[in-house]
Amino acid sequence: MVRIRPLQPEDWPATWRIMEPVVRAGETLPFDPAMDAEGGHAVWVEAALQAFVAVAADGGVLGTYHIKPNGPTLAAHVCNCGYVVAATARRQGIGSLLFSHSQDQALALGFRAMQFNLVVSTNTAAVQAWQHNGMVVVGTLPGAFHHRRLGFVDAHVMYKILKSD
Amino acid sequence: MVRIRPLQPEDWPATWRIMEPVVRAGETLPFDPAMDAEGGHAVWVEAALQAFVAVAADGGVLGTYHIKPNGPTLAAHVCNCGYVVAATARRQGIGSLLFSHSQDQALALGFRAMQFNLVVSTNTAAVQAWQHNGMVVVGTLPGAFHHRRLGFVDAHVMYKILKSD
Repeated sequence: MVRIRPLQPEDWPATWRIMEPVVRAGETLPFDPAMDAEGGHAVWVEAALQAFVAVAADGGVLGTYHIKPNGPTLAAHVCNCGYVVAATARRQGIGSLLFSHSQDQALALGFRAMQFNLVVSTNTAAVQAWQHNGMVVVGTLPGAFHHRRLGFVDAHVMYKILKSD
Repeated sequence: MVRIRPLQPEDWPATWRIMEPVVRAGETLPFDPAMDAEGGHAVWVEAALQAFVAVAADGGVLGTYHIKPNGPTLAAHVCNCGYVVAATARRQGIGSLLFSHSQDQALALGFRAMQFNLVVSTNTAAVQAWQHNGMVVVGTLPGAFHHRRLGFVDAHVMYKILKSD
């Protein structure tokens, strides 16, 4: 059983352990590949409204997501989320579990829509997973992501209306 | 003759004077309409890489823009700019002068592209002006801007490649 719960300070070492290789790779997240655990905490936890972890029955961290407003006051009804799934826990539906939790959380926090600003086009597994969860590619930014291995690649802006009344 | 030069600390009162009604209106910029001069300085000057003013021959501030990276490290080659033209100086080409200066500045700073994240769809004059300057609507975000008078309205993501080698 996978459980999703708020990220506690004592979760950070295990959370960073699954994030670090993703950051180092520089293929999906825009952060400095040389970032350290403290820098990671600043962008993932301190800069967010809330952060969560998905934990296995044995307490191991399988994934994490954070949620924050995507812009200032007049754009603050749209949230932005980021997700990381441990390399050892891919293709088990953890990403969709995290997405579903984040969508419920977004609604509970009063957000009306969800926006991803920079979904790397070469990360086709992510693009497809988000589309499967109702996120729509509203536009593609030419060369907007500096992929560490492939150079400048396109990135998608994805969006989902959560509440339209 | 209109001259564009770096915004100096002593320019802030005059710059805020032209920005304040635009912020208060809540129709184009996403900032809190109740923001004060200090808050304005934080988002317009302190949060930016550089800020500039367009000044008339008599020294009056006619417009301002700021430039900053649109994202962290692997997205930091794309810049984001914001522009304000004084209500009394509209339809005189000040916006295009500012845009042209910002594009030169972006290239001088090493940026490869320019992105506007939230161009309010009802602000048709701005959309057309940016298109005239080569910015392309790459996507439209449904209800992403909370227009103070019209409620939730669509916003465009606009983008221009500056350097493609």
